[in-house]
Amino acid sequence: MTRLPQNPIKVGVLGATGTVGQRFILLLSTHPFFKLHVLGASSRSAGLAYSKAVRWKQVSPIPECARDLIVKTCIAQEFAECSIVFSGLDADVAGDIEAEFRAADLAVFSNSKNFRRDPVVPLIVPLVNTSHLSIIPHQRSLNSLQKGFIVTNANCSTTGLVIPLAALEKAFGPIDTCLVTTMQAISGAGYPGVPSFDIFDNVVPHIGGEEEKMEWEVAKILGGIAEDGQSFDCRATSPLLVSASCNRVPVLEGHTECVSVRFARRPPPSVEQIQQAMRDFTCEAQEVGCPSAPKEVIFVHEEVDRPQPRLDRDFQKGAGVNVGRIRPCPVLDVKFVVLSNNVAIGAATSSIINAEYAVLTGVVASDPVA
Amino acid sequence: MTRLPQNPIKVGVLGATGTVGQRFILLLSTHPFFKLHVLGASSRSAGLAYSKAVRWKQVSPIPECARDLIVKTCIAQEFAECSIVFSGLDADVAGDIEAEFRAADLAVFSNSKNFRRDPVVPLIVPLVNTSHLSIIPHQRSLNSLQKGFIVTNANCSTTGLVIPLAALEKAFGPIDTCLVTTMQAISGAGYPGVPSFDIFDNVVPHIGGEEEKMEWEVAKILGGIAEDGQSFDCRATSPLLVSASCNRVPVLEGHTECVSVRFARRPPPSVEQIQQAMRDFTCEAQEVGCPSAPKEVIFVHEEVDRPQPRLDRDFQKGAGVNVGRIRPCPVLDVKFVVLSNNVAIGAATSSIINAEYAVLTGVVASDPVA
Amino acid sequence: MTRLPQNPIKVGVLGATGTVGQRFILLLSTHPFFKLHVLGASSRSAGLAYSKAVRWKQVSPIPECARDLIVKTCIAQEFAECSIVFSGLDADVAGDIEAEFRAADLAVFSNSKNFRRDPVVPLIVPLVNTSHLSIIPHQRSLNSLQKGFIVTNANCSTTGLVIPLAALEKAFGPIDTCLVTTMQAISGAGYPGVPSFDIFDNVVPHIGGEEEKMEWEVAKILGGIAEDGQSFDCRATSPLLVSASCNRVPVLEGHTECVSVRFARRPPPSVEQIQQAMRDFTCEAQEVGCPSAPKEVIFVHEEVDRPQPRLDRDFQKGAGVNVGRIRPCPVLDVKFVVLSNNVAIGAATSSIINAEYAVLTGVVASDPVA
Amino acid sequence: MTRLPQNPIKVGVLGATGTVGQRFILLLSTHPFFKLHVLGASSRSAGLAYSKAVRWKQVSPIPECARDLIVKTCIAQEFAECSIVFSGLDADVAGDIEAEFRAADLAVFSNSKNFRRDPVVPLIVPLVNTSHLSIIPHQRSLNSLQKGFIVTNANCSTTGLVIPLAALEKAFGPIDTCLVTTMQAISGAGYPGVPSFDIFDNVVPHIGGEEEKMEWEVAKILGGIAEDGQSFDCRATSPLLVSASCNRVPVLEGHTECVSVRFARRPPPSVEQIQQAMRDFTCEAQEVGCPSAPKEVIFVHEEVDRPQPRLDRDFQKGAGVNVGRIRPCPVLDVKFVVLSNNVAIGAATSSIINAEYAVLTGVVASDPVA
Repeated sequence: MTRLPQNPIKVGVLGATGTVGQRFILLLSTHPFFKLHVLGASSRSAGLAYSKAVRWKQVSPIPECARDLIVKTCIAQEFAECSIVFSGLDADVAGDIEAEFRAADLAVFSNSKNFRRDPVVPLIVPLVNTSHLSIIPHQRSLNSLQKGFIVTNANCSTTGLVIPLAALEKAFGPIDTCLVTTMQAISGAGYPGVPSFDIFDNVVPHIGGEEEKMEWEVAKILGGIAEDGQSFDCRATSPLLVSASCNRVPVLEGHTECVSVRFARRPPPSVEQIQQAMRDFTCEAQEVGCPSAPKEVIFVHEEVDRPQPRLDRDFQKGAGVNVGRIRPCPVLDVKFVVLSNNVAIGAATSSIINAEYAVLTGVVASDPVA
Repeated sequence: MTRLPQNPIKVGVLGATGTVGQRFILLLSTHPFFKLHVLGASSRSAGLAYSKAVRWKQVSPIPECARDLIVKTCIAQEFAECSIVFSGLDADVAGDIEAEFRAADLAVFSNSKNFRRDPVVPLIVPLVNTSHLSIIPHQRSLNSLQKGFIVTNANCSTTGLVIPLAALEKAFGPIDTCLVTTMQAISGAGYPGVPSFDIFDNVVPHIGGEEEKMEWEVAKILGGIAEDGQSFDCRATSPLLVSASCNRVPVLEGHTECVSVRFARRPPPSVEQIQQAMRDFTCEAQEVGCPSAPKEVIFVHEEVDRPQPRLDRDFQKGAGVNVGRIRPCPVLDVKFVVLSNNVAIGAATSSIINAEYAVLTGVVASDPVA
Repeated sequence: MTRLPQNPIKVGVLGATGTVGQRFILLLSTHPFFKLHVLGASSRSAGLAYSKAVRWKQVSPIPECARDLIVKTCIAQEFAECSIVFSGLDADVAGDIEAEFRAADLAVFSNSKNFRRDPVVPLIVPLVNTSHLSIIPHQRSLNSLQKGFIVTNANCSTTGLVIPLAALEKAFGPIDTCLVTTMQAISGAGYPGVPSFDIFDNVVPHIGGEEEKMEWEVAKILGGIAEDGQSFDCRATSPLLVSASCNRVPVLEGHTECVSVRFARRPPPSVEQIQQAMRDFTCEAQEVGCPSAPKEVIFVHEEVDRPQPRLDRDFQKGAGVNVGRIRPCPVLDVKFVVLSNNVAIGAATSSIINAEYAVLTGVVASDPVA
Repeated sequence: MTRLPQNPIKVGVLGATGTVGQRFILLLSTHPFFKLHVLGASSRSAGLAYSKAVRWKQVSPIPECARDLIVKTCIAQEFAECSIVFSGLDADVAGDIEAEFRAADLAVFSNSKNFRRDPVVPLIVPLVNTSHLSIIPHQRSLNSLQKGFIVTNANCSTTGLVIPLAALEKAFGPIDTCLVTTMQAISGAGYPGVPSFDIFDNVVPHIGGEEEKMEWEVAKILGGIAEDGQSFDCRATSPLLVSASCNRVPVLEGHTECVSVRFARRPPPSVEQIQQAMRDFTCEAQEVGCPSAPKEVIFVHEEVDRPQPRLDRDFQKGAGVNVGRIRPCPVLDVKFVVLSNNVAIGAATSSIINAEYAVLTGVVASDPVA
């Protein structure tokens, strides 16, 4: 395991008053080596103490380290002392601001969707494809930067899906096709998000853009990097067809997904082999010692009615995923249920593990002069 | 359209105090030609006025015609004057009681699962396969009966699925494979049913026996009858593989199902053709004039986020189904969302339309001597 | 009973695309003598067919009579042909628009709060104080009008409270003090209203301005009119102290209120007397034959656990109130539970009965020349 | 602060598979000096490993220290080695079993209601009246015991109410009257508890026996002990009238209560004085250093819309209470909102603090020979 940084690493949060921003702050407030240094939000909040600017919606109180920080506007010079900037910005502003921050040679780890399809920006689920960080030198070079870059993490519903898919491909080779139906929590829509009148006693069988994201992001995440290290192959060689049906359900936190897959390999692996492969799956973020990585990437349930969002979403602080009901699929090969915490590994936790990995592998300098 | 019966037809309800029984009573209380005559329940309720025996859980009050009926035990002689007996019995007692009623030469329309797999008992979704009633003479003959028989209707989640599948097969020939993920309402579990502690802010990704029922019942319903008229072929010749994933969600009423299908026909029909075929679909229950049949078997929604259980479950009193989001499936051919009312067409309404059809086609005698 | 108007009376709806506006349209679409003639909304909607302008959120489809009406802006000349204008406008615009409509000699029945405290505008709960319409001549005279006026109905939580209070005062004389704790449905907040993230698995013990409204409105509604007929006494002579605690709970429709009261009369009436007085309570709106008035103003439940919002809110189409659990209060005299439908008698239904009463008593001319 | 025991104290749990039993086990698994030694349940569970016997319904996994314990039947000899026995038994069996355990000279801390009204059994809310333990010698003497006794804690809704009342009486003298309306969580009803069909989108304005419990228990808890130390005065001298209205609402955990009080003292204290008195309130359980006592008995919120169950129920692990919205009551003197965690301080946490207090004050011997 890698040595942890000796000195605290100053970090900033963009969109600090929003839902994702609040989660960043909660996670960073107890982090072993990241230290909250600057909080950025809209000009409406700038100049206020964080506790005055935010409509805090978390179950635990505002961390002491954030309460009295004066909120700044989201301009790069305010964050000049930060080695890392986490972005929880809304998509309508994230594009411009993150680009400006990168141009100012800052390292941006973004939860926003804006740069996910950029050909030189890695889209990283930290329990799956941290290797994609290898494109950073090329991204820097294109932008004439020394330290700056943008790394994105995936959409919350993609994240829950792609982790077990990665475990299966690692053990059994390419997956051919995948059908997934999601039952997504309301917290995935931010705040104020879904009006209660729309989702009480109801299911909404549509989430704008979500199915397209799932179908596309999986291909980039499970794809490799071209030989010259300068582009992603987005599963060009061995296509993986994904068909997603996305639903909003009256659940606060935790996305449940029913997944069926077909392997390229004939005959396909058995249910027992798949259970074992999921249990055995490990990732580089664990190997290099990322403090926020879960102990078990995939926890496999044996009870017939698990995982369930209310009971399982907080296991390992939501940093891993839960899989259950692995069983044969009469149409494809095998089907199972995934439960992932959309506000943890599906959002802020992913960004933070990505950043930990970047620090521990030297992509971000870890021990700057104090 | 067929002539409606001139005289009221006396009917009984088995399991009258249960959830399905209460729905039978509501529907029968305003029926144009069925007349509630006997209510049967357990010995604990027998002898009491219905209003004293029942824990009424419906939104409208107990119908006047049922309020003061004295509840009987579920033995055939109490129902001797009934031309039709509807059964909403629990599966643990339905088998014996329904068999006894049939042996007493009574016509039983059952919502219970016990006889669904019986080789001479039709499993009828009234908007799909009323033609299966043609096996009744053979069933009577095997049991040496003049009038008695058992007809079952399908499981609530099967019903929602099989209606659009039937529309598609009617228009485009056999469906090869079908993947379905359900999000089922708590009312499907009866009363007391699902503990609130289990389903609040939660999804339970398992309903005992439900997936097997869906996968099997579709084959019987969409199958034909053998040439000799004495057995069902259960889709022996052109198998339709169904893979079901069943979930309970925090919704009171209305099962939502995400369905993907692959046709045998190549190339498959277009989305527009499928929309049209669903809209055009009609059934024999409509043709013979069943009063409880919906005007539109399938209502096709154009809004991107419909159907939704809370908004659409009561359309046409829940007697039809709602389909929306018909779109290409990257893995199979096409995918769509179905919403069906599990306590209406998914339960009591199906039994009643089946009985109406039997009356209107002479399978049950409609104008007995007074 | 009064003779109903022979000719349809043309009516308009202000705020037609909003939550209350949608309810007005549903109720008016099947009304025996009101006829939807003009729909008004913001300039964003004006010029569109209603079905294109509205985000329809009701369980039944958009009524045919409204679907193709072209939405107008909320200026009086667009409504010149309307004998009555119903207002479901938001409070931020209702003041100016309703004043302009009155100035144009139009009769406005408003669900908005803006004019409720106006000294010459009656605040009418139609099952309680339709007699307050007698101030209309004075209101017209002050504004130099022939036909125009503004009548308001009460806040939804006030309405549920004041109806049983009126029944008690009618039978037993003045109530001294009243403590009420409300559990209010989310639909009371309009659309988008309460974010699901705020109210799922939660109670919010505060609704802005609601407690003040309840404490104040009761005094005006249960007060008389001064002898000169030109002002309300707002309970100046026999004060009724009300203390309200208002809560939002995760319920879609139906406000539940726990009420304790103390009578001026000593000894106070018995529980049995109170039950009887509630059952016996009738109102002038019934006497003159308002078609939307409920058959029973107060339905008194005997079951120990009723009324309940989900089971009782739709009784009598929500036009009456439900009372249950009448029992002694160890601190004041008696306590009970009220359930009223906040979107029916708590909003649009009240306005409509008020207008029916005005027509049937000649305050609004009923049979204008065609 | 008192010295903590040096050696672990062996404890048992009666009703270990039930809802309260599971909470006892969670809390005891990480306790600084109590050590889980025996788990008792019905004969159906006896003989099984705990993990096989229980339907575990908690968010965190079964603690390691309980997982493999073999469940025993609830007979005293199985618990002979336990210095303390916690009872989470259902009321229908708790009476006999707890009596037998006491007769066997065991110290029983019970969450059940059976002995709460017993004239020599203290009813202790640990943040209020631990002084009532002084009756134990008399209870032992009556039963000819050396060590055994029964101590009960209060009903969950009583607990939330009585803590702020105690703070007010401590600062301002007797409270005269108190009206309280509760909005209680479903977890208060145990498992399976409230059927989802009854409480979804609903309020149930009745909880059997709950109002009587609240009205009565407050008098015993806030009353003193007679001079001879052999009975409770149950507020005989300065009566405190309580009127409770109890409601079940669709919330998982956390009871919200709207409270109005009238003081004997005229004039009553101001809102500011009351806020301060609540903040300043401390209890003996804190003073002797009970490890499970909260740091702040009452946390007073300043936000206008707090406390809320979802956001505040887990503050201080649910061991304290939350109060907010302290404001004048137009009818009595002052009103406020209380939020207490019904499964923590409202149940198992109370029993455990009571036991900690008994150990730290020598009522239970703390360092027995190993």
